[in-house]
Amino acid sequence: MTSLEQVRQLSKIDQIQIAGLIFGSEQRAKEVKQFLADCEKIPEVQTNADFYNWSRKKQFLSKDKQGFSFMKMINNQVDDMEQYTGPMIYSATTNHYGVYLAMVVPALKILGTQEQINAWLDDLIQIRKAACYAQTELGHGSDIQSLQTTATYDKGTQEFVINTPTIQAAKFWPGDLGILANWALVFAQLIVDGTNYGVQSFMVQIRDEQTHKPLKGIEVGDIGPKMGYQVKDNGFLKFDNVRIPKFNMLAKYISISPQGKVMKEGDPKISYASMMMMRKLLNTVYPKAAAISLTIALRYSYTRQQFTNDKGVENSVIEYQTQQHKLLPLLANLFAVVLSGNVTSKFVDLNFTEVQKGNFSHMNACHSLLCGTKANYTHFVVNCAEWCRLSCGGHGYAHYSGLPSIYQEHSPNVTLEGENQIMFLQLARYLLKLLKTSQKNPEKIPEQFSLFKRINEILSFKCDQFQTSNILSLLESSVIHLITQTGMKMMQEIQGGMNPKAAWDYKLGTSLWESANYFIEYYKFVCFQNTILLVTHKQTQVVLTNLLNLFGVTILLQNPLALLENDVITQQTMKQLRDEYENLLNLIKPEALSLVESFCLADGGLRTTIGRADGKPYEYTYDWAVNENSLNKIDFSNTVNQLKNCRPKL
Amino acid sequence: MTSLEQVRQLSKIDQIQIAGLIFGSEQRAKEVKQFLADCEKIPEVQTNADFYNWSRKKQFLSKDKQGFSFMKMINNQVDDMEQYTGPMIYSATTNHYGVYLAMVVPALKILGTQEQINAWLDDLIQIRKAACYAQTELGHGSDIQSLQTTATYDKGTQEFVINTPTIQAAKFWPGDLGILANWALVFAQLIVDGTNYGVQSFMVQIRDEQTHKPLKGIEVGDIGPKMGYQVKDNGFLKFDNVRIPKFNMLAKYISISPQGKVMKEGDPKISYASMMMMRKLLNTVYPKAAAISLTIALRYSYTRQQFTNDKGVENSVIEYQTQQHKLLPLLANLFAVVLSGNVTSKFVDLNFTEVQKGNFSHMNACHSLLCGTKANYTHFVVNCAEWCRLSCGGHGYAHYSGLPSIYQEHSPNVTLEGENQIMFLQLARYLLKLLKTSQKNPEKIPEQFSLFKRINEILSFKCDQFQTSNILSLLESSVIHLITQTGMKMMQEIQGGMNPKAAWDYKLGTSLWESANYFIEYYKFVCFQNTILLVTHKQTQVVLTNLLNLFGVTILLQNPLALLENDVITQQTMKQLRDEYENLLNLIKPEALSLVESFCLADGGLRTTIGRADGKPYEYTYDWAVNENSLNKIDFSNTVNQLKNCRPKL
Repeated sequence: MTSLEQVRQLSKIDQIQIAGLIFGSEQRAKEVKQFLADCEKIPEVQTNADFYNWSRKKQFLSKDKQGFSFMKMINNQVDDMEQYTGPMIYSATTNHYGVYLAMVVPALKILGTQEQINAWLDDLIQIRKAACYAQTELGHGSDIQSLQTTATYDKGTQEFVINTPTIQAAKFWPGDLGILANWALVFAQLIVDGTNYGVQSFMVQIRDEQTHKPLKGIEVGDIGPKMGYQVKDNGFLKFDNVRIPKFNMLAKYISISPQGKVMKEGDPKISYASMMMMRKLLNTVYPKAAAISLTIALRYSYTRQQFTNDKGVENSVIEYQTQQHKLLPLLANLFAVVLSGNVTSKFVDLNFTEVQKGNFSHMNACHSLLCGTKANYTHFVVNCAEWCRLSCGGHGYAHYSGLPSIYQEHSPNVTLEGENQIMFLQLARYLLKLLKTSQKNPEKIPEQFSLFKRINEILSFKCDQFQTSNILSLLESSVIHLITQTGMKMMQEIQGGMNPKAAWDYKLGTSLWESANYFIEYYKFVCFQNTILLVTHKQTQVVLTNLLNLFGVTILLQNPLALLENDVITQQTMKQLRDEYENLLNLIKPEALSLVESFCLADGGLRTTIGRADGKPYEYTYDWAVNENSLNKIDFSNTVNQLKNCRPKL
Repeated sequence: MTSLEQVRQLSKIDQIQIAGLIFGSEQRAKEVKQFLADCEKIPEVQTNADFYNWSRKKQFLSKDKQGFSFMKMINNQVDDMEQYTGPMIYSATTNHYGVYLAMVVPALKILGTQEQINAWLDDLIQIRKAACYAQTELGHGSDIQSLQTTATYDKGTQEFVINTPTIQAAKFWPGDLGILANWALVFAQLIVDGTNYGVQSFMVQIRDEQTHKPLKGIEVGDIGPKMGYQVKDNGFLKFDNVRIPKFNMLAKYISISPQGKVMKEGDPKISYASMMMMRKLLNTVYPKAAAISLTIALRYSYTRQQFTNDKGVENSVIEYQTQQHKLLPLLANLFAVVLSGNVTSKFVDLNFTEVQKGNFSHMNACHSLLCGTKANYTHFVVNCAEWCRLSCGGHGYAHYSGLPSIYQEHSPNVTLEGENQIMFLQLARYLLKLLKTSQKNPEKIPEQFSLFKRINEILSFKCDQFQTSNILSLLESSVIHLITQTGMKMMQEIQGGMNPKAAWDYKLGTSLWESANYFIEYYKFVCFQNTILLVTHKQTQVVLTNLLNLFGVTILLQNPLALLENDVITQQTMKQLRDEYENLLNLIKPEALSLVESFCLADGGLRTTIGRADGKPYEYTYDWAVNENSLNKIDFSNTVNQLKNCRPKL
């Protein structure tokens, strides 16, 4: 019996219940588990162990079959995002056409009229018109309002003229654009009769549907290699006065008469509905990749033995406090992220159902929560991959560990679909607004932000004696103290004569950022806590509660300043918090493996030698090095001899 | 005039004086600057813009010429580490034979007898015997004492038998081993007559010097692709009872008579002298790579404009507090790292000079300082690359920014030559020892640790009113409070019946880690402060003092708990610290560009489009994408058509 098997047998939790929480329902958990198990048997969806020795060309071409196998496995339901979980967890790398199916298809459905949907949806889903989401430009990303591409309406021909006026205005970064796309959903400033009507979206053909050559007036290609995303053809795109029919502007919330009269309706944020859908995907599907990192790192930590203990026997590295300190808070955070992501996801769906009915009342709360969680979660996934890598010593740096690819493929998420810092600032802006609302119209505060209804009560809270039942109050207290302090600082600067915008940009940035992030940590705790109430299996509930508390205590210990500075806690409480932290590490350690294995990840999808289900890190690692590494099949002896002969001439 | 030129013209500092501090002397600074300028004209040493599209084979082969050009440029002084600065800064990626020249050559010089040096040194430097440093095994890295490779002495033949008894004992990771080396300096347990004499080093031939085929009993190859180090052939190596002459054990500090009598002399730490030399390299040459990241990120931050300010004009992103918060503390830390690294480097040289004379009295202090600075500095370089990348938004993720390669090539440094956490624990062990020494023999405390002579004075320090002149005292106070608390906790656990080793492993890990890291931050501050005293140019001294204070205040704000919990500072002091932080950001901002440009980095060595000396990020980026990216020269139309045709069959 391997040591992993021993650890599993001592676990007392009900993994199926936990998997149900993770994937939304036990039924859905079974489907995902089955999907991953099915993948193990399909050669086309495996990532070759030699993949990272290959050129980008070879890597790119190798992905074709994988993408289509996945589509087949999900019965071609490419417009159902729920289906993306399995492929994303299994492949780690991004897939061909992934961006356009996840962004352009929802954009058309939300922003297009029924006539437009009828005209393009089927072609889009059938990949006849493969349309990339062409928003970001070389010079502007998060600042969407300042995009420079223009779409000028020509009344005479009833066409739009799409143009790239400067080099900064070139579209840059859209996924699937560099090589694959033949259409683009282009975001451009709508100009009618010299008046700018803001950024709108336009369906533009960019390559011939038969020859795949760029059309006249189009310059297009791949932007070059990146830290990861080797198989993603992020592209550039320049327009030299390209004409498209009036019909091609997505027109559900904006329309233009033949004579050039523009009519808008609804919340302008709806234009970025696709980004909201993409953020939903980032918030629900992608964080599960952190379970890949933790499955690998935890399994390795049980099997890796280094240094002898006080009895002269080698310890598994998981026994060391430093290793627990690296990994177990990440495990707790993983659950906080995934469970709160599921809650947010439902809220996003509700919002879009209401928007379809013309009710935009949830839009602000939903947008703000998505911004904040997107920034927090995407940072978490990358940070988790990094610490898991570090916890595996040297082996973590090798691709055979499976960890570098998680880091490399998830790193872009912290900047794409809204750069994280800007995302936090958007949430912070909303939180400051709520501070005002709490004084004038507390009844208008949305449920997710209800702590703003109890500001005075929260500000007067003190905690002389720490108990785990205080964690929520301490988190609330931190959030409210931080936000009110930031609000007061804003007031002071304005009273001191500073323009509000200048105060925001030059004086408050870091406080706003910190406040927004702390709010999200609090929000995660609340969602996690509420989810545990659904668990019926007693011992599972106990373990998850310990995990929740570990998450809360970790957050408090990482950011206790607001509590200390406002005398909410004493030095004594701080000491108790630290003791409780150590206590919780000890409580979670025996269940850590079973907790992370509730994500049901399969060996092939982990692409690892050091974190496989049966352990044996050294056997697999040596085997891959000897048998799977193509570099060892090349004869370098001539090169080496040339090197040696070259030397004496120096 | 570009905006970068405007910023430069407003600077009041003397860059040549600063460069002198950075590189050790103004003369040396001029040499490095000249070296980097020379590199710009030599095609062989440029990294091709298309490099990261290539297969590892092609990448590996492309490095040959670069390595040899560098050797030629440094006049073949490959055993003078001082010479590595230029090539390292310019190439970013590791170079062929770099590991063996930096590790095996010093090992031979320090551990070998004169006879052994005569036998091998010339062949090593001439790359006739290219010997890798074969220490790490699959199963053991930092825990060197537990290595499993054996070297058993055979009296009959006066040979050692080198053997790999288990798969865990296979050598794994040595650089230059996978493809290039024909010899190895192997670290193995010396067994004589059944007695283990600990880990010793042995020169072992592994490949034929003519055919380059592995010799009998040797299994050797490349371990596979990694997160970075694409051109480094980290290798594996297994021995099946390979015989080598008795002469081949490096024997300056250990020798064996023909009959098998073993004699040792000196401090056993001397066996790892090469690792100390490598750590010196990591501590002096490698941190300068953080200047690459910061040069790119700062230049980009001045040229990138995003969002309009209160006057309706687009701001350079450096104007935002959040951007300053990301970059300026890193700039301050860069100077603290580089200037303290220079001080440490001199101490290492002194130690080795003394060791040659048989004086091992500096060994412990030197070893501990090197461990702690290695862990702190290598983490800094990676963290700096990461935040510079994030500060450049999406562009930071692309290789054309130049930032991913810094991250990828420096990531291994946090685990190689001693995993960082283990390194901190080694320093912590020494600090706890000094705590005892301070009570019994304070006169024995080395100069670098002299704050241990003033423990009581430091513990009684309070600061009600913050001034920048208090920073040093506050740092000292944090260090001493943390270490004494950790010492007390250790005592309590032992008094509670715990074995000291168990307390260390299971109860104290995180406190020890934190204490050691804080000591290094304090040490960096002291070295930085002392270095500023050498500056004669008045305004330069003012700016560097602000930079020093920014470094100190950042450290205090990141870790104020020991101060708050021990009532060293009040809430009022905390507020003053924060105000001072904002004040210092404003003071440094106008000089940030000139400060980082004191590192004299050349465009070719930055390998960037977004951070070049003349600005123009969009022009270069678009140009590279269109003209340098080989993917755009491939016709993918057949592939795309296949994909489209494949689709309807699903």
